[in-house]
Amino acid sequence: MTTIAVEQRILNANDQIAAENRAALDAAGTLAINVMASPGAGKTSLILATAARLPADVRPAVIEGDLASRIDADTMTAAGIDVVQINTGGSCHLDAPMVRTALPELLAGRPDLLFIENVGNLICTAEFALGSHLNVVVASSPEGHDKPYKYPGMFAAADAVVLNKADVMAVFDFDVDFFQRGLAMVNAHAPLFVVSCRTGDGLDAWVAWLLAQRAQS
Amino acid sequence: MTTIAVEQRILNANDQIAAENRAALDAAGTLAINVMASPGAGKTSLILATAARLPADVRPAVIEGDLASRIDADTMTAAGIDVVQINTGGSCHLDAPMVRTALPELLAGRPDLLFIENVGNLICTAEFALGSHLNVVVASSPEGHDKPYKYPGMFAAADAVVLNKADVMAVFDFDVDFFQRGLAMVNAHAPLFVVSCRTGDGLDAWVAWLLAQRAQS
Repeated sequence: MTTIAVEQRILNANDQIAAENRAALDAAGTLAINVMASPGAGKTSLILATAARLPADVRPAVIEGDLASRIDADTMTAAGIDVVQINTGGSCHLDAPMVRTALPELLAGRPDLLFIENVGNLICTAEFALGSHLNVVVASSPEGHDKPYKYPGMFAAADAVVLNKADVMAVFDFDVDFFQRGLAMVNAHAPLFVVSCRTGDGLDAWVAWLLAQRAQS
Repeated sequence: MTTIAVEQRILNANDQIAAENRAALDAAGTLAINVMASPGAGKTSLILATAARLPADVRPAVIEGDLASRIDADTMTAAGIDVVQINTGGSCHLDAPMVRTALPELLAGRPDLLFIENVGNLICTAEFALGSHLNVVVASSPEGHDKPYKYPGMFAAADAVVLNKADVMAVFDFDVDFFQRGLAMVNAHAPLFVVSCRTGDGLDAWVAWLLAQRAQS
């Protein structure tokens, strides 16, 4: 009972700060996308490939969430994208207070899109609101087609699902229909984009959807 | 402060039950291996491939930990391996009380090896003792060679690391040396086994190591 009460207070405080983050994002005219996935599914690759396909007047920025290291932030900087690295230490997910620390620097540039690359974790990241407008889950074919069945909470929380590494799907005997049936069981509205960040296949449809979300926001 | 105190009590209770699990395992003459990895790295495949390579007098059993579904347990049953499925509901890791519920049924058969397949999670699973004798981390080449740098806690906790999907390493530009240097930075003792559960490459060395651990225990 004690544990539940404490967690409740923590979540409420997080939600309060998430609401403040959302207000700051809206004031800057920035659409924020919480990008969640297993380790190595291709979150960084998707953000890079998406940024490269944006119209010239749509400017991206990135928050990189990792337990440790700034490998991904260095990759973004090399690509000319404004980035703030957050190292969570032991924490298995980003939370709203962490995101808040990065917003003043990034929102000063009034980016059109802010990609928040969460820690690689297909469970815990879905449980903490950050203030973002969209939750995007990246899956990848080497992980196997059973993931929506095994990690229903994450897929239920998605506004869109990007299935990456489609170019090697045959190597991993990946059954897209089985994956999509599992997704539909837990999420009736999220579109599925089958892409390869390496070959570029499928990315145009994903970017078009993302830009449409921005236009509607 | 309140949160820390509560978590402390929970961890202490978990450690107490983990010690009881260990005693039950030792009494049955069973070596237990906590198998941890990202979702889809190949935990189930490794357990199946290992079981198929055991000498006839070494009998395996399995605990399957998943948020939801009994897909992996059905796979084990089809392979003729004694298995208990634990569905954690929302919890992102197995804990000692969950494992305790599965032990009476499995230890009645006095298996020589008990593989405890943890929930797919490269962070939280390392933080909860189960009573197992060995922690084995499974990584896979599609996840990328930067994982020991990004998830140091998990790799630091390993008694051995199995790098799976080695047959597609070239496809993913996987740099084994970079991976191994990252592993060595956080863990000076864990051997690295580079394997492919699909082709069988590298599995003999891993199984020989595992059997040597059993002989020493």
